Amino acid sequence: MRMYNIIKKKRDGRELSKEEIDYFVENYVNGQIPDYQVSALLMAIYFNKMTARETIDLTKSMINSGDTVDLSKIDGIKVDKHSTGGVGDTISLILGPMVAACGVPFVKMSGRGLGHTGGTLDKLESINNLRVELTTEEFLSNVNKINIAICSQTANITPADKKIYSLRDVTATVDNLSLIASSIMSKKLAIGSDAIILDVKVGSGAFMKKVEDALDLSREMVRIGTSYGRETIALISNMNEPLGKAIGNTLEVKEAIETLKGNGPDDLYELSLRLGTKLLLLAKKVNSEKEGRILLEEAIKSNAAYNKLIELVEHQGGDIEQIKNPELLPKANYIIEVKSKKEGYVKSIDAERIGQCALKLGAGRKKLDSKIDYSAGIILNKKVNDKVMINETLAFLHANNIKKAKEVEEELKDIFDIGDKNEKCKKIVYGLVTKDRTELY
Amino acid sequence: MRMYNIIKKKRDGRELSKEEIDYFVENYVNGQIPDYQVSALLMAIYFNKMTARETIDLTKSMINSGDTVDLSKIDGIKVDKHSTGGVGDTISLILGPMVAACGVPFVKMSGRGLGHTGGTLDKLESINNLRVELTTEEFLSNVNKINIAICSQTANITPADKKIYSLRDVTATVDNLSLIASSIMSKKLAIGSDAIILDVKVGSGAFMKKVEDALDLSREMVRIGTSYGRETIALISNMNEPLGKAIGNTLEVKEAIETLKGNGPDDLYELSLRLGTKLLLLAKKVNSEKEGRILLEEAIKSNAAYNKLIELVEHQGGDIEQIKNPELLPKANYIIEVKSKKEGYVKSIDAERIGQCALKLGAGRKKLDSKIDYSAGIILNKKVNDKVMINETLAFLHANNIKKAKEVEEELKDIFDIGDKNEKCKKIVYGLVTKDRTELY
Repeated sequence: MRMYNIIKKKRDGRELSKEEIDYFVENYVNGQIPDYQVSALLMAIYFNKMTARETIDLTKSMINSGDTVDLSKIDGIKVDKHSTGGVGDTISLILGPMVAACGVPFVKMSGRGLGHTGGTLDKLESINNLRVELTTEEFLSNVNKINIAICSQTANITPADKKIYSLRDVTATVDNLSLIASSIMSKKLAIGSDAIILDVKVGSGAFMKKVEDALDLSREMVRIGTSYGRETIALISNMNEPLGKAIGNTLEVKEAIETLKGNGPDDLYELSLRLGTKLLLLAKKVNSEKEGRILLEEAIKSNAAYNKLIELVEHQGGDIEQIKNPELLPKANYIIEVKSKKEGYVKSIDAERIGQCALKLGAGRKKLDSKIDYSAGIILNKKVNDKVMINETLAFLHANNIKKAKEVEEELKDIFDIGDKNEKCKKIVYGLVTKDRTELY
Repeated sequence: MRMYNIIKKKRDGRELSKEEIDYFVENYVNGQIPDYQVSALLMAIYFNKMTARETIDLTKSMINSGDTVDLSKIDGIKVDKHSTGGVGDTISLILGPMVAACGVPFVKMSGRGLGHTGGTLDKLESINNLRVELTTEEFLSNVNKINIAICSQTANITPADKKIYSLRDVTATVDNLSLIASSIMSKKLAIGSDAIILDVKVGSGAFMKKVEDALDLSREMVRIGTSYGRETIALISNMNEPLGKAIGNTLEVKEAIETLKGNGPDDLYELSLRLGTKLLLLAKKVNSEKEGRILLEEAIKSNAAYNKLIELVEHQGGDIEQIKNPELLPKANYIIEVKSKKEGYVKSIDAERIGQCALKLGAGRKKLDSKIDYSAGIILNKKVNDKVMINETLAFLHANNIKKAKEVEEELKDIFDIGDKNEKCKKIVYGLVTKDRTELY
């Protein structure tokens, strides 16, 4: 087999065999195939696409390139959740404790990446002493004891995906459905949960801008998960405005705590309930949506979910006093109020641009080795369709660099589009994709 | 400027600016841009193509990446010739002396590459002591004295083309009109001849299999040459059967000598005349095709062209006794007659497959460091439309490895397709492309 022929075959629009896909993935990881041949193949895939079969084989090949995590020592139906990424997405810190409090083992291993704010791991690490680097033994033991663990991926999960993704990132070959789906799913499937829910974001602050594209990606990912023998479903959710009100690491931890106490923003709470209900159904904990919702609401009301977060923090070595009294979490030196220059209703808040502002304040990573400023970020005081008066506060900036904060202040005023009401923008979930069907809401 | 954005722009089907093309060529050559980004860009170019403007800018950028050869110290209109490559293509060794004998300075700097047989340089080097590595001074002085020099390119002609071509070769991105045309033309234009004739081969033994494709390539190359201020024309010639009868290095040198003496194969002689006539017109040596043809025929009859070859060999240090008595040229140990098993007319002789046979006998290079067996090759005894009797000789194999010769013998019998006459296959020239028009014959 020759890599040249594999490139040519895909370039000419033909389907690669399982053996050809295995050959290129294996030999790329072991250094026998150079970057420049793989980037040519990736660009050919960008243009000629991959069939469903090729995509599934690519995913399997990437899973096989590294270690997998065996969860069979954990009793029950283990569930996992993945978000395709948005702005102010604090869901995992709410959803995990909620379903774990309902008796469903929630297992989550995350990677770290670039982003407007840190990922779930970074948010957790903004809590004093909390460890996300667990040994497999610790991870399994925690889930067995308290039904939840959130930790970083072991180093050798899907090395092929890491290597291929790095190359896609610098060769303009990220935007391909098969490559995106196989990258996400290989990482998920390498960790042996029984059921997976995918929160596929769509809108200005998401990778997918159109519902149609989000549906396509969802179907591709569900197909891959199903073919691998895992229950997989995808919920398509709104990312036109930021989710919740907090954008930034400790700010989002505080928001998660508030939500688990029943005082969170409506959209964040509602999406957590929607996702949670699906997870309880997948885990066969309940028989209907209604039953699931009641169980989850009960876990909030009884403080069981909030207590589960405390247990999670405690079992991973974190300072639970910071959860019990969030005022103890790191705080920014400056809080700046951003005032409205106009009167009217908030028509839109471009999530992507809000994310860029948070990044500018230091809340996220531009490069893989960037240091995150945990306390920096933005709290929205107004969301879409809220009434705003002149000089009323639109948002609070939390910053440690006053110069950057001043720049961001002006930008934020511009991002809040004030005018008429915009009903359609408030939809929380657009649809659901399961192995059998697509539902649009 | 970022290479990522350049890749993305071309991937999205947009036209690259001159600055963007210069940026990527310059920084690729100086090592600032890695292979893997260039191969992704090349694949994007393969799919989305380049406009005429982009192709011209790419060519210029590649020329500017290295040295150029100034021929202004040579009087008169200097002409150059390039063939896109075929089997048994001995034209340069005939055409050069012919036009030089008519008083037109013929300047040719060639590169070395892979091929079924060696290139013009290798054929010349099969003559004892002949040097193709001339200094610029020697080269200019020879052309000034005897109107002809054929030598190797200096090391630093179009380094960008060398680097890009090597990458295309291993990433399945060779087959793109703009990339092919700019690669050929950058090398030609870096050498300052005033007029260029392109012999664009088409047929089973050529890179271009269809006349349409050859016309497209010709138009692209003529456009590039013209935009660079050089008179450029292209002749589309037949490469369905090998040109002439000899395939192999010394065998082709002998054939060139015979042709210059007026005893060459019809097709080789005729194509040399057609190309030569065009060169005399380009050099303003004659005013009409008819006049040109007469002048060239006269150069053959008078032995002026033959004597010019002797001068060429002499001025480059070669043993002219081997030209005067070609029996002194290297000879193969074995000559095997390939006999026909059938009676009829030769319907076709697949030039590509004949080339492969010559390569198998050692006449060409599989890898850049392969050593060429100068005396190995094939002499066709029958060409298309010749009558063949059972047991009559189809070809003679010249070989030094008897085992390989035996293999090739069987293969050759199969390559000669014996049946009915095939008139249309005998056309020598299909068409002409100039800056103003395309003529089809």
